[in-house]
Amino acid sequence: MTSHSINRLAHDDHDFDVRLEAILERSEGNDPAIEGRVREIIAGVRERGDDALLEYTNRYDRRQAQLADLTIPQAALTAALDGLDAELRAALQDAADRVRRYHEKQVQQSWRYVDDDGIELGQQVTPLDRAGVYVPGGKAAYPSSVLMNVIPARVAGVGEVVMVVPTPDDQRNPLVLAAAAIAGVDRVFAIGGAQAVAALAYGTELVPRVDKIVGPGNAYVAMAKRLVFGRVGIDMIAGPSEVLIVADASADPDWVAMDLFAQAEHDELASAILITADADFAERVAASIERLLPEMERAEIIATALRDNGAIVTVADADAAAALVNRMAPEHLELALADPEAFLPRVRHAGAIFLGHYSAESLGDYCAGPNHVLPTSRTARFSSPLGVYDFQKRSSIIGCNAAGADKLAQTASVLARGEGLTAHARSAEYRRKP
Amino acid sequence: MTSHSINRLAHDDHDFDVRLEAILERSEGNDPAIEGRVREIIAGVRERGDDALLEYTNRYDRRQAQLADLTIPQAALTAALDGLDAELRAALQDAADRVRRYHEKQVQQSWRYVDDDGIELGQQVTPLDRAGVYVPGGKAAYPSSVLMNVIPARVAGVGEVVMVVPTPDDQRNPLVLAAAAIAGVDRVFAIGGAQAVAALAYGTELVPRVDKIVGPGNAYVAMAKRLVFGRVGIDMIAGPSEVLIVADASADPDWVAMDLFAQAEHDELASAILITADADFAERVAASIERLLPEMERAEIIATALRDNGAIVTVADADAAAALVNRMAPEHLELALADPEAFLPRVRHAGAIFLGHYSAESLGDYCAGPNHVLPTSRTARFSSPLGVYDFQKRSSIIGCNAAGADKLAQTASVLARGEGLTAHARSAEYRRKP
Repeated sequence: MTSHSINRLAHDDHDFDVRLEAILERSEGNDPAIEGRVREIIAGVRERGDDALLEYTNRYDRRQAQLADLTIPQAALTAALDGLDAELRAALQDAADRVRRYHEKQVQQSWRYVDDDGIELGQQVTPLDRAGVYVPGGKAAYPSSVLMNVIPARVAGVGEVVMVVPTPDDQRNPLVLAAAAIAGVDRVFAIGGAQAVAALAYGTELVPRVDKIVGPGNAYVAMAKRLVFGRVGIDMIAGPSEVLIVADASADPDWVAMDLFAQAEHDELASAILITADADFAERVAASIERLLPEMERAEIIATALRDNGAIVTVADADAAAALVNRMAPEHLELALADPEAFLPRVRHAGAIFLGHYSAESLGDYCAGPNHVLPTSRTARFSSPLGVYDFQKRSSIIGCNAAGADKLAQTASVLARGEGLTAHARSAEYRRKP
Repeated sequence: MTSHSINRLAHDDHDFDVRLEAILERSEGNDPAIEGRVREIIAGVRERGDDALLEYTNRYDRRQAQLADLTIPQAALTAALDGLDAELRAALQDAADRVRRYHEKQVQQSWRYVDDDGIELGQQVTPLDRAGVYVPGGKAAYPSSVLMNVIPARVAGVGEVVMVVPTPDDQRNPLVLAAAAIAGVDRVFAIGGAQAVAALAYGTELVPRVDKIVGPGNAYVAMAKRLVFGRVGIDMIAGPSEVLIVADASADPDWVAMDLFAQAEHDELASAILITADADFAERVAASIERLLPEMERAEIIATALRDNGAIVTVADADAAAALVNRMAPEHLELALADPEAFLPRVRHAGAIFLGHYSAESLGDYCAGPNHVLPTSRTARFSSPLGVYDFQKRSSIIGCNAAGADKLAQTASVLARGEGLTAHARSAEYRRKP
């Protein structure tokens, strides 16, 4: 039986590498037209401040706002929370509590020690003064994203958390505002797009300049973040979402199919891939996909995503599966295996790892505790989930007494003269014992 | 008495803010001509691989190299080390040992715990597979930079460390090669500029693709790193070097002047600023600058840097000094105070903090232990010294048993339906107890 909904690859196909790379290939998001437009918007906000911010907001969000309308007051957040259905409110609160408890484990502490030469060394950890959180409007307006971006900043001890969220056609999303109330945002502005990023990076009279901007957005937002990087910190340039499931015959094919759908329903660019060493199990998942797909509310999006960026890959054994995992460095990795702990040590690159059949990615997306902002497009090779550490930074501490300085100065002076930096050498030599 | 060599500012001058900002203002390095050229070079290396790499290298480094000449073999590193003057070799080894011992304190460990609902949560820490270290050639060829960039990668457990260093006119820097031998670099290529960054980011037949590129470079290198960011990780876009010294009358004016010179001698763009609440001490430092400057080997560079980006700033008290420190967020902060520990808790933003009169920045530059790759241009507001953590990344771990999944699935299902993501909801609901 063949599934028409998803690509089928076998590791020993002669064209395996080419086909896999085609499925994994992601746009690098360097559209020159978008870049030109975003540069203009940033320059506009830098030069004309709030006038430009208001003008772009009214144009792109189809509003006739005054400057005062760009602020969403705390009262509106509280009202949104109070107006929430009780079950939804309890769920948001439960998710927030779990996310907070997990992230509290990530807090980094300052440390100091005295080395053998009596030199004080250490690392002082401090939070950022002010963070900006971008929350998309429109169809991708997720209250869970508000929790995931704001709570780590709060746990880190960031002085002020500023949120921006576009309100196209003056539509505010009450779930997003309620989540902002629960997470504890200090100020919210009803702005979005590159103009919101520019305002956060450079500051306007209305919008305070922040030290770091986090949160997902469309291609304009991603480009703006890329362009202001350096002036402010940014989290990462997020690509389309991905899941990689490694499964054996102990998994339920319907569960695996639904987990692939959950990823694919995000948007047409989402990627959902199953790897299994069991060819028979692969057939059963393909059959589940065929049977369950028509039932899905977002069947069209799912079908497109599975066709373009989805695959069932059969491999010879667990070694081959592990090699593929590390090559793909997936954002989400489900180990739907009888013994996931045995496989875990082989995983070098993944954003989040879900162990066993009960650990569905969707549980992690909302409320397990770990962050759902994760490295995409194989960047798990070098980057990490969003965390408290993204809102803390470190300062090195160096404290020499006379004896320690005498020792260091000897080495420093030799090396400085070796590099031709004689003022360095003389500065060190002043600290030598007479 | 007035110094003509350095700007003089008093905190209560009517034009204080404007003058200070002018001194602090840094180019953002977005030269469109450089960007266009770098984009071409990157495209060339992506499309034509080693042919392009060789062509650019021969053109920009004035060489007639063959492909084989682009590799510097391990034997050349060992030979450089063996050929080193004994005092210099001992100093390099001492510096490497101290840097390694400090960085070993930064290693992050994986952690796991089971929460109240029986859910396994954690963070798995793994090193990068392969890191690329850019080392400048020519006048800014610093062996200390090799140690500072390579050792954290090695301590993190990075699988392979690849170094690139341009050899203009076929000139190899033996100190740099010796440092590479001591630090333990796996492979060295005699390439530089944007073409070296492109080769590391995309890989060629000769040069393996890396996961992250670190190390300083000129405007072309910085632009190339900015453009490949996302495809690979990068450390930071380093700006000109800076020192801020907060001093009181317990400091020796000659020592403070020399510490300012040590920073200023790097290049004409370097910034060196003294803040003191003691107007008389400010005069004494100005006098030391006048007296000592003519003695300096790099007097012209120092004079230009002090004139363009140097200042002696007098303030009313320690509160005003602390406010300025945090506003400037300096790369290097010397607290040349009788009681530096009393001032330290007020410092929120600085790359490295040097406590007391014996803790000269130059000692930290070479051998105190902490890294000398530090956030510049006020980016200490949100970023940290280069460290072992830059070569490790984290994967979240989520492991649910049936009971835990039942609990999470309840919350996840409500939130997923609230966001209109019904495949997420159904994936969660499969994990509920029947």
